[in-house]
Formats: sequence, structure tokens, C-alpha cells
Amino acid sequence: MLFGSLFFGSVLFGASELETIMKERNLSEKDILAAAKTYQPSGRKDDFIVFSSGGQSGQVIVYGVPSMRILKYIGVFTPEPWQGYGYDEESKKVLAGGNIRGKQITWGDTHHPNFSEKNGEYVGDFLFINDKANPRVAVINLHDFETTQIVANPVIKSEHGGSFVTPNTEYVIEASQYASPLDNEYHPIDEYEAVYRGAVTLWKFDYANGRIDEKNSFTLELPPYWQDLSDAGKGESFGWAFTNSINSEMYTGGIEKGLPPFEAGVSRNDTDFMHIYNWQILEKLAKDSKNYKIINGHKVISIKAAVDAGALFLIPEPKSPHGVDVTPDGRYIIVGGKLDTHASVYDFKKIKQMIDKKEFAAKDPFGIPILDLKKALHGQVELGLGPLHTTFDAKDGIVYTSLYVDSQVVKWDYKNLKVLDRVNVHYNIGHLDTMEGKSAKPIGKYAIALDKLSIDRFNPVGPLHPQNHQLIDISGAKMELTYDMPIPLGEPHDVISISASKLKPAMTYKMGTNSRTGKQHEAMTLAGQERVERDGKNVKVYATVVRSHINPEHIEVNKDDNVTIYLTNLERAQDETHGFGIDLYNIHASIEPGKTASVNFIADMEGVFPYYCTEFCSALHLEMMGYLYVKDPNKKYESAKNSQLKTLSPDALKAEYEKVIATNKATDDVIQSVVKFLKEKGYEKYPRVKELVIDALDQYGKIGEVKAKADAAAKSGDLNNAILWEYQVWQYLVKTADVGLRAKNNLVRELSTPMSEAASRGEKAYLTGGCNGCHVIGQVSSGPDLTGVLLRHENGEKFVFDFIKDPAKFYEDEYIKSMINYFNLRMPNQHMKDNEIKDIIEYLKWIDENAGLN
Amino acid sequence: MLFGSLFFGSVLFGASELETIMKERNLSEKDILAAAKTYQPSGRKDDFIVFSSGGQSGQVIVYGVPSMRILKYIGVFTPEPWQGYGYDEESKKVLAGGNIRGKQITWGDTHHPNFSEKNGEYVGDFLFINDKANPRVAVINLHDFETTQIVANPVIKSEHGGSFVTPNTEYVIEASQYASPLDNEYHPIDEYEAVYRGAVTLWKFDYANGRIDEKNSFTLELPPYWQDLSDAGKGESFGWAFTNSINSEMYTGGIEKGLPPFEAGVSRNDTDFMHIYNWQILEKLAKDSKNYKIINGHKVISIKAAVDAGALFLIPEPKSPHGVDVTPDGRYIIVGGKLDTHASVYDFKKIKQMIDKKEFAAKDPFGIPILDLKKALHGQVELGLGPLHTTFDAKDGIVYTSLYVDSQVVKWDYKNLKVLDRVNVHYNIGHLDTMEGKSAKPIGKYAIALDKLSIDRFNPVGPLHPQNHQLIDISGAKMELTYDMPIPLGEPHDVISISASKLKPAMTYKMGTNSRTGKQHEAMTLAGQERVERDGKNVKVYATVVRSHINPEHIEVNKDDNVTIYLTNLERAQDETHGFGIDLYNIHASIEPGKTASVNFIADMEGVFPYYCTEFCSALHLEMMGYLYVKDPNKKYESAKNSQLKTLSPDALKAEYEKVIATNKATDDVIQSVVKFLKEKGYEKYPRVKELVIDALDQYGKIGEVKAKADAAAKSGDLNNAILWEYQVWQYLVKTADVGLRAKNNLVRELSTPMSEAASRGEKAYLTGGCNGCHVIGQVSSGPDLTGVLLRHENGEKFVFDFIKDPAKFYEDEYIKSMINYFNLRMPNQHMKDNEIKDIIEYLKWIDENAGLN
Repeated sequence: MLFGSLFFGSVLFGASELETIMKERNLSEKDILAAAKTYQPSGRKDDFIVFSSGGQSGQVIVYGVPSMRILKYIGVFTPEPWQGYGYDEESKKVLAGGNIRGKQITWGDTHHPNFSEKNGEYVGDFLFINDKANPRVAVINLHDFETTQIVANPVIKSEHGGSFVTPNTEYVIEASQYASPLDNEYHPIDEYEAVYRGAVTLWKFDYANGRIDEKNSFTLELPPYWQDLSDAGKGESFGWAFTNSINSEMYTGGIEKGLPPFEAGVSRNDTDFMHIYNWQILEKLAKDSKNYKIINGHKVISIKAAVDAGALFLIPEPKSPHGVDVTPDGRYIIVGGKLDTHASVYDFKKIKQMIDKKEFAAKDPFGIPILDLKKALHGQVELGLGPLHTTFDAKDGIVYTSLYVDSQVVKWDYKNLKVLDRVNVHYNIGHLDTMEGKSAKPIGKYAIALDKLSIDRFNPVGPLHPQNHQLIDISGAKMELTYDMPIPLGEPHDVISISASKLKPAMTYKMGTNSRTGKQHEAMTLAGQERVERDGKNVKVYATVVRSHINPEHIEVNKDDNVTIYLTNLERAQDETHGFGIDLYNIHASIEPGKTASVNFIADMEGVFPYYCTEFCSALHLEMMGYLYVKDPNKKYESAKNSQLKTLSPDALKAEYEKVIATNKATDDVIQSVVKFLKEKGYEKYPRVKELVIDALDQYGKIGEVKAKADAAAKSGDLNNAILWEYQVWQYLVKTADVGLRAKNNLVRELSTPMSEAASRGEKAYLTGGCNGCHVIGQVSSGPDLTGVLLRHENGEKFVFDFIKDPAKFYEDEYIKSMINYFNLRMPNQHMKDNEIKDIIEYLKWIDENAGLN
Repeated sequence: MLFGSLFFGSVLFGASELETIMKERNLSEKDILAAAKTYQPSGRKDDFIVFSSGGQSGQVIVYGVPSMRILKYIGVFTPEPWQGYGYDEESKKVLAGGNIRGKQITWGDTHHPNFSEKNGEYVGDFLFINDKANPRVAVINLHDFETTQIVANPVIKSEHGGSFVTPNTEYVIEASQYASPLDNEYHPIDEYEAVYRGAVTLWKFDYANGRIDEKNSFTLELPPYWQDLSDAGKGESFGWAFTNSINSEMYTGGIEKGLPPFEAGVSRNDTDFMHIYNWQILEKLAKDSKNYKIINGHKVISIKAAVDAGALFLIPEPKSPHGVDVTPDGRYIIVGGKLDTHASVYDFKKIKQMIDKKEFAAKDPFGIPILDLKKALHGQVELGLGPLHTTFDAKDGIVYTSLYVDSQVVKWDYKNLKVLDRVNVHYNIGHLDTMEGKSAKPIGKYAIALDKLSIDRFNPVGPLHPQNHQLIDISGAKMELTYDMPIPLGEPHDVISISASKLKPAMTYKMGTNSRTGKQHEAMTLAGQERVERDGKNVKVYATVVRSHINPEHIEVNKDDNVTIYLTNLERAQDETHGFGIDLYNIHASIEPGKTASVNFIADMEGVFPYYCTEFCSALHLEMMGYLYVKDPNKKYESAKNSQLKTLSPDALKAEYEKVIATNKATDDVIQSVVKFLKEKGYEKYPRVKELVIDALDQYGKIGEVKAKADAAAKSGDLNNAILWEYQVWQYLVKTADVGLRAKNNLVRELSTPMSEAASRGEKAYLTGGCNGCHVIGQVSSGPDLTGVLLRHENGEKFVFDFIKDPAKFYEDEYIKSMINYFNLRMPNQHMKDNEIKDIIEYLKWIDENAGLN
């Protein structure tokens, strides 16, 4: 046991390694517990996957819980070259969906990610994310973690309260933020009340096609109150949705004119308004043109039509509300007032009763009925300074609320209106999530605090700090902060989490897939179909990529040609992505196994431009290249004098040919020995190993064709080409061996005896004691191979013990004498302790047990 | 002790928490040790900082060791909106430096990061990084972690072997990869030997100005051998540099014509060439025009001139070399041949002797002297399949080499030519680094394996996998894999590491700094200097940003105006970054404290466009906004009918005014109590707390001005504006309180007694046992406040113990009776165990000790 000393005192084994590390690194026992709760050993998967908005990076961030390791940044609103996003033609089409008024927008301010839902529970098919800066919503397909659609809102100018999903993903909700005219014209600010409007758009989602159906979507006009966050009702409140607001004052600022700034005027009222609306009624209104206007080609239901149909109400919310979170059962709505110290728990049952009875306290200036705050409340709880967002536990009634000013997470009971626990976070927390916390079936277990300031938490990296996502263990009575994770890019605004088991992404594509549509690409190119097609100035190149060459390797076009290169990755093996970049031409594609992607450019620069695989796809990835030639058809080129490669003599060629044949034979022998090992050990029982063997056989299977070319060249006396083709055979052999050895290593790990603690200590003693100065395991070196040494001697363990303890005693032993003679070296006394020698013997036993595996 | 059971068996305290977690999470003791070696508690800083290239993301990644947490992605060749990189005017100028032939390139394939050096040791001033896709080199200023310069290579078309630094940062080396014509014209591939060339560019670095001096830089022409990696000599080999190559075959491919692909032909020869050149001699040659040609405005020294001057030599390298790594003392050069199983150790002393004696084995077709391989070798060691890169340990002679095909790191002794240890990595490792491993003074300690495939290591995130950087503890005799870190964005190619103590980045800017030049921005705007300047169609807005308003809040321009908005962040507090985005206009700036940045756009869309602070800078960050109005000067606008805000009655106004005055008074009282606490406890002794207090006072200091406006308005009878200005007073009070409370919390943490293990267990027992159902610490609730309970009773500890143990016994006690009366509740028997009660008493003691701090 490594922890021997902890269990048995330090007499036997000296200070334990754990104690030593704790002392060295100044870690408390609490730290060790936190480490144990979050650490993932190599290859171990996380239980939950978190999708975080990337703020102004315009991306979505994916990370694992509890390890808090970031797994992926998904390009959404911002071009990202690693993924080819915005650099290949397929993704450019997705991004173009987000153009507004015909103009390209190359960034976004991603805010609220949400999953597709069924009965209010998360389904790991799609993720929706909104752009606060430019009112847009994107759809990410969770089958390949790629953005497949962006829709631009035609009427609102800025938003915040998207993208919230109704319980069966009927609609994606997008609420405006700063009130603006819904048309695209100039209107001065003194027409604020007359012309400026808020709005909430209900985007219809076509689940089967995985796309937002823009034609069947519509918008509800709202007063210019600066709508903020939203949430969809569920269970008891199914069919309804809730959107709060922060400027019921309708203040219009003007610091530059000597007026108080927005922050003063917008915070004047003690209450703002929650908007309560029924999307099922609105859906019906949107079917009759008398209820809506068409603005910028889009249906906008008027406030009046909604009010008349009983689909829109207001209810006051305490000072500058922020979060509006519906409880898992849909019965309550919890609102945090960021300038109030309370959270308010609204009871939807009471709200519904007042609506049904038409019991209204007042009407707002736009004619919307206002419900009485006190009558709608289940109650209020004093939480602290700056309560913002609330998320839920699996335990009934237990919730967690973020306190921005107090920099705390507070755990409380919204049914019994009681605070239960608090934990400090670092610093100024915004959103907060628990596992599946906003679904109809929260899991709880962990909470994630999205701290807006990190200040002193991490090593300094300049004035622009990383954000800090803190992991809190909420499984016990007391919340415990266990991990600080810096966010290296973007200022995440909100996260949403899902059980890892609910995600089942594909790891390769069906051959020839256009990943942005999910359908077969019209330019899918299989091996042997590579070609160049020209039609006037339009040049289409149908290319393939596979370890380790691009076909074609030379592409010649005329200056100003419109060139499209379609690339199909012929690999079937996981993680065998190829990239494609052309120097200076500013294009890049990431082509995962089975994908077809294309790049397009006008060849407006003359010259020679290398292209290459930008992924380190194999040992010879640097050799995976080609040249693009752009020739000016109006120019006369003088031919440079070609120097000539020295040609080899026939004898030299023959010698080289024989050499490469021999090399290939030797390499194939290695492969056959690996194959034999794999078969004997029953590799097929181990899925991971089996997959690697399939990949290796893919590589091996390509040899026949090139070997035939080599043989044909040799037969026709063209030894030079025969040699080159034999080198290509060798390339495939090397790749087969590469993957085959990885398969073998995996199998060995599956089959090998785990090393005992004693053997592990023994290995260390062996190395520290310098045994490896002369001995190499598995080889005769300056000393004999120690594999089998325990078996070579009668009573082997005792012999080896005594020999290590005092070698000189044996110098006259006949066998030892012969060894000394052979190696011309005497085994020295390394002054090992008894327990070290015992451990070394355990190590030697382990070597013998696993000797057949190497 | 939390680990009680480990120390004392499970009798006393039940199964230990660590054991429980280990069982639940299926962690071995080895896993716990690895966790303990890598975990960082909240706020703890890492020992080393790693800078990683971001591959095709075009960025640089910064992370900490041993925690393996990514701290920052730095935008380099690719625009990145979070940092405003490529979205504000200052950074656009930096990116424009990377234009090639006048064309913008919006991505890069970053490859080899290197630090500025002094005597071959790392200096944390600058980081250099090259772009393999488009031959460019960037300079990152490590004083703020921003990219400040990009230079484009005028002659080479693709590169790989940059950016390596000479020992005193005299030059940054950039070597070409795929041979191409050095001019910009078309040349067919059959002119390969005649016209296509490799090259190595020596970029002169002006350290004082932190910029590459393009005019004093030059290039050395090389044969078209596909130059690959490079390294600068040092110590014994100072003045020399080394660049290897992989296509000495000068094979030109042609799979589309039925010829074997590049990978076959390029791997034909058993050896390629290392280029050995002397940059001190070349520097002199570059001063005399007879030695160079000017190509695209840049000096290119001919092969002949270099050979004639004794500045260029070749030496064979075994099959498809990759890494070329100079030992810390500069004496040896270690080369891995990726299709060879050996590493070759060249002895520079032997090389230098041959050069001095002009002892050449042959000449290449370009007239370059070739040295004899065997005579130049110190020796070769069989390492395994696919040896690539070598990095160094603090221990003399000890090195680590990556094996791509074997997926291993091998530790060996390059002096005694002996393998010492191996560790498996997952999978297919490329580059490898040890701490400061490539400097003249390696630290060793940790190694980082850059695995090109991660396959089964992480939760699946679709066909495009994260990379895997594995941390290996190399401090012991045996290497130990301790952490797997996924890289979420980009395929990093290489890393370089530095002691955290060598980096001293600024955390704020001097007021008005243009961060891309480091100088004062010509448009620095201080508070009160905000203004709009018009000159025909050119509109310049001088704006400021500060918690929580942008000044101005309304900007009106005419359609097609050329608008520039200069933004100065007036904050002095760390981490108080403001962002600036205008909806739909596709601009974004990140303005850290003290920075001045600008955005520019043509106002070509008519309408109303909100702008806002994109950072969650304070509780009221949503209120930090304004409106841009774009009016068409050729259009007539009809005025919409303004509705009127309800005006309040004089009485109502008076009541509201008095209310806000009272609120402000109450808020100020809180602030004063915090100030009193801070002063009494001597906050000035704690730098972190002091800094927060300064920030709080900054906020507080702004009150005077707005309070004066409020009072003036009140005096003139304009109660409405008086109220609004009082709300602005309140905003500042709230922000002061926010930061002040954070200061107080920090101070409390500095001062409070650490909770003992027993007290910590007691807190848990208190919560689990349900004590908090009636008692709230610090407050009278359904039961009495327990603060001081131990002191309220004689022999308090015994009394509390007995009372918890069996409350019924005390129901008739006079004092208890009165309490039962008061609260109308009897203390129930919670059936706590004796040791739980003892722990709770420890917890109560801890509360009393720290009662004065809350």
C-alpha cells in the first residue's frame, strides 16, 4: 500500500508519499478530499457535461464535471479556423444565416444555452444559444457538436432573454433587451414611448429536421421596458412563459446632456414587471392576419391582440429583477431582484386564479392587465445582497441562488422559505447551475458558480483576466467548494449541464457527409474518383485525403479562376482528422473521418502555393502536401534551365530495389508477429482493440494496389518507379504497424497483471538503486536480462535476496564466476535495505508474469 | 482529523471520507497521489506557466503546471472578439502587419513558441510564435499578454522551423518548409531544382522596442530540401544554428499522374541533411550587396556567398529527421529520425574541428560542403519507433524523447548513450517539453507530452477530438503520468514553459494606454473630456467607460458617416474590464482598466442601434448602455406622437425624494460600519484588502460630484432630477458597498481562526442533525442564537453537552423553562452521538472565536 505509513505508522515504510506531497505542496486534508472528488485518472470519463456560453467569444464551451476539464470550444457566431468554421463553404452557409440586413457579422455575445427538451427533461439532441449583441439564435447538433443553423431576428435590435425552450421543444424563446423601433428606420429618443418597443420572438422548432422553421415563427410586441431573462412554464404552468424587465421607468438616459445616466434612472422604481404570456394562445393568434402586422417580412402580434385574447399580463417584481426561474414542477417562479435582498417566490396557481377571475390590480400605459404582487406571492426570503439566479436540487424545495454583491451561493428552501447554508465564491457570481438543474428532473449533486471576477485566484496573465467557474459539491448538508476552473477565452454568461450518458455523439461520419446539413455531400469523392473539372473560369477539384497523401498533389489553374476544392476524408478510424490549408489563400478545412467539405477562392495571386494537411495525422503528416500553381494566361513564361537529378546506375538501382524489398519483408514480419499475438490473445473480445485492428487492416488493405504498381514497374524494367512504389508499400506497412502496435499495447494493458504496491515500490528501488545501470529488462546489456532470473535458480527468491544483499559472497560460486567472466563485471553491493530487496523481488515476479506480453 | 480513520482505524469516527470517496469514485492510491500532485486549492498559483501553440486556431494557449488549467487563449493570427482582437482599430493594425501581397489573412497555423533569451536562459519579456500556413512570425508582449507585432516573410511561401531564438534574442529564426520559388511568379514543377528553393530568415529583434526590425533582417537561400525544424546554438556552439530537412530526394510527387505520392518519394533516402550555418558571419555578409539579391524588397544571401564565406555546411541525418535539439551547454545536437529507431547525438566539437580543417566528405548539387556523419557523431541510441523531439532535464546528460509510433516518452542518458525509463502516453506524441527544458538551464521536474490523438481518453464530443496534453512527473527515478488535459480548441503543435516567477505582467494599464504600441493613445479621454468631433463625414467620439455607464449615452450620426469611437476605461481596479459592442455593426472592443481602444465603422445602415458594455462589470452592467442613431440626411422623418410619462404630484415627488435620501443614508451607514471594521482591524497590512479598499474609495469619491447635482436640482425645485441624481448617488454607494464588502470578507478570511478538523466535523453534525432547523448562527430565529451559548452558562461546555444529549432532563430548569416559554418550542432530542456533540461544541467555540469578525 502506498499509504502504508498512514495505516501502519512510519516505522515500516518511512514517511508516506501522500504525507510528503501534502507537506511539499502545503495541502490540507480538506484539499486532498477536494482533489479526490474532482480528479480523473487517464481515460476516465466525467459524469456530467456542461455547455457554457462563451460570451463575447461568440462560441460555446463544453466541459466535464467533476474534472472541470474543457473538452471543446464550438464555433457558433465567430469564425474559428481549427474547425474550418467560416473557412469552408459548408459552414460559411451556416454563418450567412446570421447575416442581418445583408451584412456579415463575425462575432456574437452568446448568453443562454439550453437543450432540447421532452416533458421538460433534457434530451441530448440539440443545443440552442442566443447572441445578445446581434439578435440571433443558433442550433448546435449534439450528434457531432457542430453548429448547423443560425437565424437572425428580423425585428428586435438587441436581445438577452433567449434561448429558452418550451417543454417539448415546440418553441425557442428569444426576448429583446434594449427597446428599439421594430422597423429599421431612424426614430429619435423622444419618440421612445410611441415607437420604441420590446418583443419576444417564438421560434418554431422542427425537431425531425433539427431546424428552426422561420416561416412558422412569430413575435409578440411588448412595451419598451427592457425585457431581460425568460423561462418557459412546465407542468402546472405549461403553455405559459415568463419574461422579466428592468426599465419599467422607461428612462432614456442622457449623461452627455447633463442628465443622470441610465443606471440611475433605470433603477428608480421599487418594482419592474414580469411579463406572463401564453404561447399556445399566441400560436393561434399568429394564424389570423388581423392579430399581427408584418414587419420586415415577419409576423408581429400586437400588444392589443394579445391582451384581448387573454394571453398577456404583467406582475410587479422587486427592484431590478434578474433571474426568473420556474420550479421543476412548474408551480412556482423564483425571481431575484439584484437591488433587493430578497428572492420572491411566485405561486403560479395563485396567478392563474387571478387571471381566470380577471382580478387585475391595474393596467399599464399599454393596456396590459397588472396582477397584484402580494396576492401572487408564495413568499419572500431575505437571501443577501444582489440575488440573481436560482437553480434546483433533486430534493424537493431545495434551491441555490447566486448573490452577486455578497459573492455567495445561498442554499435555501423555497417551500418553507428558509435559508439553509451559504458558501463564499470568488468573486461576484452571475449565473449558477446544478446538474440538470433547470429541467423538470434536477439531479443536483454539483453546483457551478460563474464568477465574473477572478482577480487573485490564478497566475496573472495580464490585465484581461480569465473567468472563474467554481465547482461546489452540494451532495452533503454543507456546500463545499472543490475546484476553481479558469475560463481561458470569452466571458461565459450561463451554463447548462446534462448527464454524460444522455449524449451519444457520432465519432465518425457516414462516408461523404456534409456535416452542416447531415446529408450526403453532392461532391462526395471516393478513392479513384479524384478529378479536376473545368467550366470556363470555374474549376472544381474533387480531392481525397487519407494517411498520408492528398490526391491530387498538383493543381494548376489560371489567374482569376474561381476554384472550389471538394475534400473527402476516406478514413474510417476515429480521430483521424485531416486538415487542409493552402498557403497565403486564407482558406482552411477540418475534415473528420467520412466528412466531405469544400473550400472556394478566386485565384487572384499568381505563383506557387503549397497546400498541406494541417493535422498531425501520422508520422508522415508533413509529407501530406501538394502544390497549387496559379498561372497568368496573359503572360509568357521563360523556361528555366532544368538541372538534372543524378540518375543512379542500373546496379545501384537494383541494389536499392532489393534493399527496399527486404525492408518491406522485415516490416511485414513485425506486423505478422503482432497479428499473431493479437489473434492468440483474442483481441476481438476488446472493443477498443478491435477498432484499432480494423483501422490497421484498412491501412494494410491498401497495399495490394500499390504493390501491383511496384511489381508492374519492376517487370517493365522501370526500377526507379518500382522503388518509389515499394516505398509507398512501406508507408502503408509503417502505418499498419503504428496502429497495430497501439492495438497490441492496448491489449497488453487489458491483459497484464496490475502491479502490486510492493512491486511498484520494487521498481522504484530498482531504478533508484541503480540496477538499471547494468541491467535492461528484456535484453542482455552490460549485465544479464533479469527476466526469469527467479526461475533460473533453485530457491530463486532466496538466492536473489542473498545475492543482492551481499554479492561478494558469491564471487567464487561457479555460475556467478562464469557470469563475471562473460560480462567482465562484478555485481556490486548497492547496500539495499531488506525491505527494498523484498520489493525488488516482487517487481521481478511481476516482470515474469507479464513477460509473455512483451 | 478528516483522515481520522486512516490514522486510527474506523472505530472512532466511522469510515474515513477519503476512503469513501476513493470507493465511490473507484480511485486507486496511485490516483490519489497523482491528484495530490496536481490539485490546486482555490487561489493557489501554479509553479510553471506553459505557452502552447494553438495550431490551426492561430492562437497561443497559456496554462499552468502542475494544475493543467488553461488560463488564456491569446489571439495572434486569428481575430478573436472577446479580446477585441481584430475588432478594434489598434489590433487591426497589428493583424495588418501579417497581410501578404496586400491581402488579409484571418488564420494561422501556430507552431513553435519561444521566449526571449539572455545567455540562452528564458526571460519572460516576449514570446515569439510562427505561422506554418502563411510564413509569418508574431511577437507577444508578456507584460500584458497581447500580440503587438506580426511580420510576413517576403520570400518563402510556407514554413515550419520558426520561431527559434538566438541566445541573447539577437535574431528570431524562421525556416521554410515546402520549397517554392522565392519570387511571386509561376514556375512549373519541372523547374524544381532550378528555381524552387528553401530558405532560412533571420529576423533582427530590437529588444528595447520589443519589435522585429524588418529592415535589418535577411534570408539565407537554401536548396529545395524541405527544411524542417531548427535550433540555435549556444555556449560552445554560439553563433551557429541548425536546421534539418526531409526531402533531400527533391522528390516532386504526382499521385494524380499515376506517380507515387510525396510520402513515398520523400522517404526514399536513408539520410537527409542538417544545415549548419553561422548567423554571425551571415550578418556580416548581409552588409555587402555583392553577397545578396533583393527579392520582394528583402535581402537574400545566396548559397554561394554563404559557402564561400564558410557559413554553410550540411551533415547527413538518419531517415526523415524531425527534432533537432541543442543540449543546454551547446555541445551536442540531438536528432530524432522519425523513420529510424535511433536518436543521433552529434558532437559540435567534432563538427567544428572538421569545419576548421575543411575536412569535407562531399559536396551537394548546390556546392555545399557535406561533413561525414560518423565522424560527427558522439553516438546513437536505439529508442524505439518514431523518435521525434528531445528535451532536457536539470540533471546532466538526462533527456526525454517522444516516440510517435510507440506512443511513449523515453528517458535516456545522451552522454552515456543508455535508455533509463519509458512511459506510455495516449496517443501518438509529437512535441515534448520539460520545465524550461530547451533553455541553457533546464529545470526538469515535469514533462508535458503533446499527444496528437486522444481517441478514448475523454467524454466524446463528436468526430473532432480534443488533443491530449499529459503531465508526467519526472522528479523521481521512474516517470509517472499524473494528468490528462484535453485541449478544447486547436491542435497545439509545441509548448514552451517558464517558471511563473519569471513573469511579471501588469494587471492594469497606465491611464490612456494604447496596448498594442505600449504608448499613450492619442485619443486618451479623461472624465469630463468626453465629446463628439465632426469634420464633414468623419465623426470622432471621445468616450469613457466606468462602472456602470458609458459617456455619451446617445450618439447621432448621418448615414454613411465614417465613425470612430475612442473608449478610455477610467477604472483603476484590477479585473474591471469593460467591453463595448454596437448591435449589428460588427465591432467589439475589450477595454481593460486604463486602456484606450477605438472602433471604426461606416454608418451604412439607417436606424437605432443599442450599444452596451459586454462585460458583466457590476450588478448593473446591463444598464451600462446607450443608443447610436443613424439618420438618413436625405430623408424626411414624420414625428411620431409622443405619449407622455405620467408626471408625479409634488407630494409624491417629495415622498420619493425623502425616501431615496433615507435609503442613501442607510446605505452609507452600512459603508461606514464596514470602513470602521476595516480600519479597526488594520486592513492596510493586507495588500489584497488594501487594493480593494482603494477601489471602493474610487467609487465613493465619485459621489461628491453627483450629490452636488442632486442638491442643486433640489434647491432649484426640480425634484424629479434631484431624485434621479440621488439614485446615481445610490449607484455609487452600492458599488462602494460591493467592493467594500469584498474587502471585509477578505480581511475576515485573513484574520479568522482556521476551523479545526473537529469543528469542521461539528459543523457537519450541526447541519446533518438538523440544528439549523431552529437555530441560525448570529440571529435569533425559531430558537436562540447560539453565538456565545458556551459563555452564557456556567461550565458551559458540560451544560451544552448534557442538554443536547438529553434535553428533556432540563425542561423544568428555570432558565430553560423561560426559553421554552419565549420561543414556544422545546429543544428536541436529536439523538446525537457523544463524539458528534463534542464536535459541535468545538464548532460553537470556533463561532465564538470569530464572532467579532462578522
